Amino acid sequence: MKRKVLVIGIGAGNPDHLTVQAIDALNRASVFFIPDKGAEKSDLAQLRREIIERFVTRTNYQVVGFDNPVRDSATPSYRQGVSDWHDAVEDVYKTLLAERLNDGECGAFLAWGDPGLYDSILRILERIRARGDIELEYEVVPGISSVQALAAAHRIPINRIGESIMITTGRKLKEGFPENADSVIVMLDGQAAFKNVDGDMEIFWGAYIGTPDEILVSGKLSDVLDEIERVRHEARSKKGWIMDTYLLRKPQAR
Amino acid sequence: MKRKVLVIGIGAGNPDHLTVQAIDALNRASVFFIPDKGAEKSDLAQLRREIIERFVTRTNYQVVGFDNPVRDSATPSYRQGVSDWHDAVEDVYKTLLAERLNDGECGAFLAWGDPGLYDSILRILERIRARGDIELEYEVVPGISSVQALAAAHRIPINRIGESIMITTGRKLKEGFPENADSVIVMLDGQAAFKNVDGDMEIFWGAYIGTPDEILVSGKLSDVLDEIERVRHEARSKKGWIMDTYLLRKPQAR
Ligand SMILES: C[S@@+](CC[C@H](N)C(=O)[O-])C[C@H]1O[C@@H](n2cnc3c(N)ncnc32)[C@H](O)[C@@H]1O
Ligand SMILES: C[S@@+](CC[C@H](N)C(=O)[O-])C[C@H]1O[C@@H](n2cnc3c(N)ncnc32)[C@H](O)[C@@H]1O
Repeated sequence: MKRKVLVIGIGAGNPDHLTVQAIDALNRASVFFIPDKGAEKSDLAQLRREIIERFVTRTNYQVVGFDNPVRDSATPSYRQGVSDWHDAVEDVYKTLLAERLNDGECGAFLAWGDPGLYDSILRILERIRARGDIELEYEVVPGISSVQALAAAHRIPINRIGESIMITTGRKLKEGFPENADSVIVMLDGQAAFKNVDGDMEIFWGAYIGTPDEILVSGKLSDVLDEIERVRHEARSKKGWIMDTYLLRKPQAR
Repeated sequence: MKRKVLVIGIGAGNPDHLTVQAIDALNRASVFFIPDKGAEKSDLAQLRREIIERFVTRTNYQVVGFDNPVRDSATPSYRQGVSDWHDAVEDVYKTLLAERLNDGECGAFLAWGDPGLYDSILRILERIRARGDIELEYEVVPGISSVQALAAAHRIPINRIGESIMITTGRKLKEGFPENADSVIVMLDGQAAFKNVDGDMEIFWGAYIGTPDEILVSGKLSDVLDEIERVRHEARSKKGWIMDTYLLRKPQAR
């Protein structure tokens, strides 16, 4: 019994980010697995459902909601916490695939942004496949990531001429600005790590990029820091969750 | 007299990479500017023309081919060479916009991959806009970059759990593997810079990704190095040009 799964990048919040390839892939699947939990998750699940309704032209499909286990942030080691969490997630996914996909059927996961960027879905599927308890085959369809959506919204290039780009997390940025990168993109920053960075940097910040709630702020970091903190706090209280990303770059040599 | 320009990401070689947003943008433009020169350029120009023919539903549009000035690689300083080249390119673009776009008309540039990644178009437009000789307004539509296309083709995540990603050039990689990045993506590598890297690294290499000529090789660098060099050389001689990208990552801790 062979199961086929498509991991489809759906872009970072704007349904118009879907590619022709993603739309074709949506139409090859008959079962859609949608994580569905919490305030943030329920808004994001809603967008996934809208995408399915808008782009899937076949009528005989099923939407299967599921609860993604939550990472235990009390585990002292970040890596260990993530690893335990992945074990739990792996079980959930294996059960889903084993019980909700029939032989020859094709299932789909709609990955936020690009499936390869700070998303654990591919790692989970690879672990399940490698374990071999169920026969699994999967394909990946790239999507517009929040990195590209951020740069496009600000109408800036991601890199400067011949220079490198670092993509990192708020957690890592707290350890210091990477000296060998000219432009640094920060994701998954729950702690406003930009506060620890040299105020001379340029920042291009965006929240809910590509959605009707999009907020953009840019400027010299020391000039716009307070504004970003305020806007961020307000937006998060109002919506119950926030998704923001920013690009930092060294001041232009003159 | 106001000119409007759309910079539209078209993905990294597969026309199905086009997003709904990009297709809508294509249909707002009435003049398409297509760089058109050399063997590589003519294949790439051909793909752009195919995209326009396939996705543009209006009939009253114009395709304007132009010669992109070539960078003088004899200039000793890379930065200076690039800067002189940008001046020349800026002139070409300004003339195009001034002479080929009428008042109120909307023009479009089809940017390979994502417009923000190792592409000078946004920098050139910003310089023209800032100079103020012509009144210019532009919008950016993100696209699937070769980075995402590479990872999707290999079905791998771009980053490992909580780790950083560096995107860099072959030129920079020659200076050494960036120690603070777990995964390094290398673009614009004309010199096979991966030959200078620790052979224990894992490499995921791809050429002409997303096109019918796609070639993928992956494995431990020391095991696949010769194969990549051979395949690369063969493909380049056959087609007259090559576009390749690769992801290097440190061997997995066990
Ligand atoms: C779990 S990661 C997933 C990233 C996703 N795979 C991508 O390609 O964008 C979630 C992080 O992505 C960023 N993000 C995703 N969508 C965003 C959006 N619409 N606006 C701002 N940031 C976003 C935020 O930094 C957030 O913490
Ligand atoms: C001038 S840069 C433009 C990158 C483009 N803006 C993007 O987002 O992919 C050209 C480099 O991109 C990479 N590249 C672009 N398309 C590619 C493809 N289809 N396959 C492999 N590499 C590609 C190669 O490293 C090439 O040297």
